[in-house]
Amino acid sequence: MKDVQFPTIDRLMLDLNGLADLVDSSRPGWSRVAMTEVDTQSRYWVADRMRAEGLEVRVDGIGNVIGTLRGRGNRRKAIVVGSHTDTVDGGGRYDGIVGVVGALEVVRMIRESGIVLEHDLRIVDFYNEEVNRFELSCLGSRAMAGTLTAEHLSTTDDAGITLGDTLAKAGWNPQLDATRWADDEVLGFLELHIEQGPILERQGLPLGVVTSICGISRFRAVFSGRRDHAGTTPMTSRADAGCAAAGVVLAVEEIASTAAQAVGTVGSVTFTPEATSVVTESALLTAEFRSPDEQWFTLAREQLAEAAARESGKRNLTASVEWSPWERPTAMDPRLSGVIAGSIGQLGHPAAQLYSGAGHDGVQMAKLGPVGMIFIPSMGGRSHCPEEFTDAAQIAVGVHALAQSVVNLDQEGLS
Amino acid sequence: MKDVQFPTIDRLMLDLNGLADLVDSSRPGWSRVAMTEVDTQSRYWVADRMRAEGLEVRVDGIGNVIGTLRGRGNRRKAIVVGSHTDTVDGGGRYDGIVGVVGALEVVRMIRESGIVLEHDLRIVDFYNEEVNRFELSCLGSRAMAGTLTAEHLSTTDDAGITLGDTLAKAGWNPQLDATRWADDEVLGFLELHIEQGPILERQGLPLGVVTSICGISRFRAVFSGRRDHAGTTPMTSRADAGCAAAGVVLAVEEIASTAAQAVGTVGSVTFTPEATSVVTESALLTAEFRSPDEQWFTLAREQLAEAAARESGKRNLTASVEWSPWERPTAMDPRLSGVIAGSIGQLGHPAAQLYSGAGHDGVQMAKLGPVGMIFIPSMGGRSHCPEEFTDAAQIAVGVHALAQSVVNLDQEGLS
Repeated sequence: MKDVQFPTIDRLMLDLNGLADLVDSSRPGWSRVAMTEVDTQSRYWVADRMRAEGLEVRVDGIGNVIGTLRGRGNRRKAIVVGSHTDTVDGGGRYDGIVGVVGALEVVRMIRESGIVLEHDLRIVDFYNEEVNRFELSCLGSRAMAGTLTAEHLSTTDDAGITLGDTLAKAGWNPQLDATRWADDEVLGFLELHIEQGPILERQGLPLGVVTSICGISRFRAVFSGRRDHAGTTPMTSRADAGCAAAGVVLAVEEIASTAAQAVGTVGSVTFTPEATSVVTESALLTAEFRSPDEQWFTLAREQLAEAAARESGKRNLTASVEWSPWERPTAMDPRLSGVIAGSIGQLGHPAAQLYSGAGHDGVQMAKLGPVGMIFIPSMGGRSHCPEEFTDAAQIAVGVHALAQSVVNLDQEGLS
Repeated sequence: MKDVQFPTIDRLMLDLNGLADLVDSSRPGWSRVAMTEVDTQSRYWVADRMRAEGLEVRVDGIGNVIGTLRGRGNRRKAIVVGSHTDTVDGGGRYDGIVGVVGALEVVRMIRESGIVLEHDLRIVDFYNEEVNRFELSCLGSRAMAGTLTAEHLSTTDDAGITLGDTLAKAGWNPQLDATRWADDEVLGFLELHIEQGPILERQGLPLGVVTSICGISRFRAVFSGRRDHAGTTPMTSRADAGCAAAGVVLAVEEIASTAAQAVGTVGSVTFTPEATSVVTESALLTAEFRSPDEQWFTLAREQLAEAAARESGKRNLTASVEWSPWERPTAMDPRLSGVIAGSIGQLGHPAAQLYSGAGHDGVQMAKLGPVGMIFIPSMGGRSHCPEEFTDAAQIAVGVHALAQSVVNLDQEGLS
């Protein structure tokens, strides 16, 4: 197995800092939200950087930036490496970005190590990985995998504007047939990403091999009580929808806390009316559960239904829980994870096996071929905030593992 | 003691229905919110009705409508009877209104019973009793009692407009010195009002003699946690401000439920950010406690502080609780309540003794002289909603008790 040389940290960070300059300065942190002007601008910046590395570059209709390093083997299947450069509003400098600038460095490292790949290597900056204001994420990888539909494009935001029109205004023209990749052109998709959680840091490990991307199941619960005068209605005569909702907030916390591998988060609680002088007539709660364990979701939904019935029943009101279509957990390909683990061992690093609590483009890319992911530590587990941080040396170790995995996959294939 | 004849239900209901026609038809229920056009219009309608009954009418600078039936005794002190005709948004046809149209009927009943009072009888339709969008209530009675200040008038709403400018736009010109009554001109203030709660209906009693108007203490609690990725941050690593807020919602319910005479109501809970994919960084909760027991508030504030510390402490976040200046309980005058109870007995009705959970103009009027209140049942205890209802015959019994109390107070005075 050919050894790939260690990355050059300075030029890796030059690209990372170049993207950190392309942000919306009117927003907190490092904000480069999909479908904004600065996001479109930065995508052409990435395309230019790819061209500077000698890649054949195309920007597809939905804004995916794809740079190809031709392999000598004239193979049908390509190795695909990438991540995303869009951020959440008020986000940081590392989420997604590390995987894109890392992939550019991989191209340079392979070249400088004197290695010529058999397979084409495609570097991808996926369009709009983060959840957008249409409540959709992973637009670019969905378009590649053929799971982005005309129905998605006609989704409207709060102002009644469609996703399709918003994409057009940002300069994109999503032709769903043209952006879709064939089923047989991906040998393997590899993504380097920050963990966005505290586990690697706590275990003192530089790298993690991802076993799966967790499933996500979201719900809305509506509690319907009775509007009463808050001064004159005794506690025993109330049907206070707000108190029932509060009970279910705590139930979400409890259900996830007692599970082996799960999290549960309430996004919002809205009382109607919002007045201390009126007993709350109705309350709306939005929440989600995540877990890598597909079986667990059945239990969680049962426990949530019990909690909603209990909290509303004891206050003489009604609750209805509406689950959105859910994303099942996505297992990483064990053969590709084996190549990654072997590559990490070859470089002399220890590594954790862990699942991803965050969603990633790998969920979509798994429909096109084997997927594997490498995690590097996030300081304090912080992410989706300006405090997000990973040390340059830690990034370099991750890029090294990514490059070695690409080379080994190219040579060994999957078995 | 002279007996006053029973009210004439039809003409009482004619006035009540006349006001029910003067509402903002673009709002639910029977909405006549203070400082709106329809409220100003209805005040002049009330003034016209007073003039039609032969009263001397003046509308003061802040919109109080005051009609005087001259007594023959040329006494310094007057008997004051009244309530308010403004409503909450989406309110009903009885809250306040019963006390104003009832007072008009009292004038007719006294005249038709052949009684001439020694004291002047003043009928008042107080301006803006309900909490307005400046978070202020009882503007009219505050102006009379001298507790409305220039600082109140410079309070701004969410759009930055002052209360003073809003009053001016509604046609009023509050001259604080001119609206204030002297300290020695009220023999007694009597108000007939719907209970707005379920107690009289449950006990099967037609009338209640109010012992006190409860105190109200409101607070804001701010919970400051940490914004984290909701997928990647284990439950044990979170500082979820939303869960702590939910714990305190339930504590408000519990603290009030375990008290002998108290209610507690959460008005709103607001999470920041409002996203299921982000652990809630901060949460704001607004709530209130009410009780007729002044001592209890000390205990309630202690218990609330303990709950906030407990719910935030176990989640490694901080909470701050800020109490607004509170309204202490206002005791009704025992001598005036004795006149009321005696009058009810004279008419052959049973009555409950109960406190008011709602605020009333009596809180302010108590600064000018003795205050007493009569309650009549509310169907299902409902109020501040379109379903608010009290049967015409029940209103008439209340008006009868009010009229007899006025006549007895006029003759007996307070002793």
